[in-house]
Amino acid sequence: MRIIVVGAAGDIGQAACNELGQRHEIITVGRTTGDFQVDIGDLNAVKSLYEAVGAFDAVVSCAGDAAFTPLADMDQETFMVGLRQKVMGQVNLVLAGLGVISDAGSFTLTSGVLDRDPIRMGTNAATANGALAGFVTGAAIEMPRGLRINVVSPGMLEVSAPRYGAWFRGHKPVSSHDVGLAYSKCVEGARTGQVVIVE
Amino acid sequence: MRIIVVGAAGDIGQAACNELGQRHEIITVGRTTGDFQVDIGDLNAVKSLYEAVGAFDAVVSCAGDAAFTPLADMDQETFMVGLRQKVMGQVNLVLAGLGVISDAGSFTLTSGVLDRDPIRMGTNAATANGALAGFVTGAAIEMPRGLRINVVSPGMLEVSAPRYGAWFRGHKPVSSHDVGLAYSKCVEGARTGQVVIVE
Repeated sequence: MRIIVVGAAGDIGQAACNELGQRHEIITVGRTTGDFQVDIGDLNAVKSLYEAVGAFDAVVSCAGDAAFTPLADMDQETFMVGLRQKVMGQVNLVLAGLGVISDAGSFTLTSGVLDRDPIRMGTNAATANGALAGFVTGAAIEMPRGLRINVVSPGMLEVSAPRYGAWFRGHKPVSSHDVGLAYSKCVEGARTGQVVIVE
Repeated sequence: MRIIVVGAAGDIGQAACNELGQRHEIITVGRTTGDFQVDIGDLNAVKSLYEAVGAFDAVVSCAGDAAFTPLADMDQETFMVGLRQKVMGQVNLVLAGLGVISDAGSFTLTSGVLDRDPIRMGTNAATANGALAGFVTGAAIEMPRGLRINVVSPGMLEVSAPRYGAWFRGHKPVSSHDVGLAYSKCVEGARTGQVVIVE
């Protein structure tokens, strides 16, 4: 398969690339790194990305920011970060890709643990994660041409613990290998409309 | 209690008012109807609403639009309707209310069935519903002063079936009475961080 991985340079993106790259051609995409650059918050930019890439069989998205801010300090602009980037950005990859991805292709998005195992300052991310679960549930039944869609919801990765561990006290970190397997299950398996939890 | 009900004129809002109005003072709010008018998509407008209302003990939100559009016809602007109105709008009611609601007060939001029981054209609403579930999970653990937050997730109401039934084939309509009880449970009970399903 020819697989586009958006956010390929991040910890989760690398885990997906390491697993899928063993058997498939990977096109890496980032905001400033990778084979192609894109701001997924802009649907037209995503359309241009797909035109530039040419034919592809799967999209794996490991991209999308959310704001980590105490609830009491959150304003509308701060809160919209997660909705515009982590939700709308990943949804844009699907909306723009529906007409151009190969028959029986797949979209695999990324959410995270915070909507089932919340932490302080995690409300914006929890909201985005829940949104993505709702999105794949709804979108899966409207997919044309045998296309599939799922979302991987990993806990904090072991490799991310030095940076984020202090926010996630008590959370058991997950291995990059296990995270990679979840993307393999979504891209190379047959499931659709599911949240694949890694914990 | 003094309870603000936003979206009080709708089918769900009326169900909430009929139950809670038996024991409490209700302040009705709508976009164009009710005791006060507000566009919940604007955080500053919501702040002004609370100033105008004065002291209150609970907010019940039965408001927030989503776009009902086939996935293949959806663009970024269409999709943002649900994120700006149904998600951000209801979140604004919480962000603006955190500092002014009475101690031990509560926020009760409204999602819906579509993130667990999807229909065609329902992806935008499913996304918003999932987002609201994630939001209350995250926000509940950061609530100050004994404040609580929950979301009611009702199926299609019997009274709404004449208008929406054709979109919800096979869905069992729920009674307005049962929907009202869910808001009572959230406002008059002690739970927090929960999705209260009515089906």
